[in-house]
Amino acid sequence: MLTLAMIYEAQRALTWLARVTPLTPAPAFGENVFIKAENLQLTGSFKLRGAYNKLHNLSPEEKERGVIACSAGNHAQGVALSASKMGVKSVICMPAGAPLAKVEATKKYGAEVVLVDGVYDDAAREAERLTKEHGYTFAHPFNDPYVIAGQGTIALEVLSQLPEVEQIVVPIGGGGLISGIAFVVKQIKPGCKIIGVQAAGAPSMVNALRDGKPEELPKVATIADGIAVKKPGDLTFTYCRKYVDEIVTVTDDEIASAILALMETQKTVAEGAGATPVAAVMFGKVDVSEKKTVCVVSGGNIDVSTLSRVITKGLTKSGRITELTTKVIDQPGHLMDLLQAVGSTGANIMSVEHKREAKSSEVNSCVVSMVLETRNPAHVQQIWEVLSQAGYEILD
Amino acid sequence: MLTLAMIYEAQRALTWLARVTPLTPAPAFGENVFIKAENLQLTGSFKLRGAYNKLHNLSPEEKERGVIACSAGNHAQGVALSASKMGVKSVICMPAGAPLAKVEATKKYGAEVVLVDGVYDDAAREAERLTKEHGYTFAHPFNDPYVIAGQGTIALEVLSQLPEVEQIVVPIGGGGLISGIAFVVKQIKPGCKIIGVQAAGAPSMVNALRDGKPEELPKVATIADGIAVKKPGDLTFTYCRKYVDEIVTVTDDEIASAILALMETQKTVAEGAGATPVAAVMFGKVDVSEKKTVCVVSGGNIDVSTLSRVITKGLTKSGRITELTTKVIDQPGHLMDLLQAVGSTGANIMSVEHKREAKSSEVNSCVVSMVLETRNPAHVQQIWEVLSQAGYEILD
Repeated sequence: MLTLAMIYEAQRALTWLARVTPLTPAPAFGENVFIKAENLQLTGSFKLRGAYNKLHNLSPEEKERGVIACSAGNHAQGVALSASKMGVKSVICMPAGAPLAKVEATKKYGAEVVLVDGVYDDAAREAERLTKEHGYTFAHPFNDPYVIAGQGTIALEVLSQLPEVEQIVVPIGGGGLISGIAFVVKQIKPGCKIIGVQAAGAPSMVNALRDGKPEELPKVATIADGIAVKKPGDLTFTYCRKYVDEIVTVTDDEIASAILALMETQKTVAEGAGATPVAAVMFGKVDVSEKKTVCVVSGGNIDVSTLSRVITKGLTKSGRITELTTKVIDQPGHLMDLLQAVGSTGANIMSVEHKREAKSSEVNSCVVSMVLETRNPAHVQQIWEVLSQAGYEILD
Repeated sequence: MLTLAMIYEAQRALTWLARVTPLTPAPAFGENVFIKAENLQLTGSFKLRGAYNKLHNLSPEEKERGVIACSAGNHAQGVALSASKMGVKSVICMPAGAPLAKVEATKKYGAEVVLVDGVYDDAAREAERLTKEHGYTFAHPFNDPYVIAGQGTIALEVLSQLPEVEQIVVPIGGGGLISGIAFVVKQIKPGCKIIGVQAAGAPSMVNALRDGKPEELPKVATIADGIAVKKPGDLTFTYCRKYVDEIVTVTDDEIASAILALMETQKTVAEGAGATPVAAVMFGKVDVSEKKTVCVVSGGNIDVSTLSRVITKGLTKSGRITELTTKVIDQPGHLMDLLQAVGSTGANIMSVEHKREAKSSEVNSCVVSMVLETRNPAHVQQIWEVLSQAGYEILD
């Protein structure tokens, strides 16, 4: 059972290792909008708080035997760093297909990484086996009161950094983060709304609240890997049902736009899960017109090659890059005519691919694919109209 | 003539508009290394400080007539925002080829943007013409004591945020930023070293100090567009000669690596110029082993499509992405053999292109280009060796 005293105790313990992360205004998203930057937490994610608090509460015998976790993500790094700072052995099971960068980062923080053939569930079974064999303590990523208490310390910081806060928007995967925050806020400032955000491709808590119990999703699909959780815990489910006011969902496109907007306006790097509260605000799923709102940017550990793809996706969605395919007659001068028509709209041509062998083209015509730098969706629309009026058939 | 009183006066004036930016530890670059995050300044760059201070010091008559600047970058945005906040008209001349995003941002901050056919020099001539025609005040981007005084306020903040600072590393384009910082530091804490950083493709201040006078570079070429300046000012040259201890240069590859490292470890977005101090530290051009060092990350306004390219470049340079081209016999099974050989090294295959029509291939062979996710340069080396030993000819 969680108590407020446990949260304050966690806060006291965490001063030894964790950072008090900044709360910064984010006027680009609304004059009442603020960011709680847990992406600037050590290990790049809030997970350190819960993991450290869990380990801090182990008995000397448990510490002696070591801890184990199953995660290819932020929880792994939180456990690894906490354990090595406390001189405790840590073992992390990961599916063998985990990104190299995550494996390396977890090793760097001092954990022994066990790569297990198969998917997450196989790694979890191996962790269970090793737990029994070696007497390790299993550190659950969210369904544990000490972990939830650790995450709840974020709420204590928010309440002291912005006492006038009226609304806090929080990502939900397994539900540990929002359980901790909601628990604290509803005791200390019950009028403050707590809004959860899930990825549309992984709405496990939304479904659980609808159906009255946590059930396992057959699959999850989202770029927000940090919240791609198939089944909430019973503990986190209980806290969400009791303390969370509302849960909204955001799509991958919306998340990509939010990551991009955070980079451009806040100059800060958020991972998919971390950007979901901002996505919810940007796309009108949370009303910020009259409430001082804090978006918890829960982490920043996004794979940079993913980030590169997200940038392209976000630029496309906001109408700042457009891919456009059309046909021209395969004779000198016709490509030039097309490029001039495009240029007349004020779009910058970033690349042109001119394919003769494409299946869709007739014998005497070529397919031309262009990538254009554009201003906004209205500008894209205008380019389509100019080209259509000039007689070009837009294929894609 | 610059005086310390002017800097304090600028600091007082700037409290009205500018942010005191955070100074944060950056342990990934060394235990003594800190970041002064001017990328988190309003408008995303330190330039706001100098621009605002310049405008603040205009006479009522000058304010009435308005200001003009020639810039496609951070200075434009600094002037635009300062002017509109003060109710002063601002006109910004830019070359017509300037990125749409920069044009839009400058308009959004309230300036009238004049796009001038040609290059920067043409835009500058037009600005000069408009200055005479309308009686505007020309706001120079660096060679102006009020601008330099504005930038110098950064040093006052650093000295109060980290009084034990022993070394400050500062980007140099025209020299306004480092002139202001060096002037302040050498009066208040003369023992603190000031190290400048230029892009290897735009070493105008390095050459000026070597030759004893500022001369115009025939051309500049660097991804750090914020410091791609052909000629330092006479004022900034004088201050650099007097107060700067040393200037080092960094290459575009080094800058790209630094941008990437700042994103991954500090979760912060720096533009090319802003990342140069960190590049200098990362690549051993500045010794940080025994000196508390502050890297001034001067700005974060990097075009996101540039950023996407920088990420790829940085991943390649640090051995985390490798492009590799080889040949296989054009018969069933041979491509599979190659992929197995690659897979055996632990590299993840991100993409494969298998081209039959490539010019370099013999009649019965195909060229295969692969993009691989790798661990580090040693891992890349190992992959080359494994493939060579298996009889594959590495083409690229």
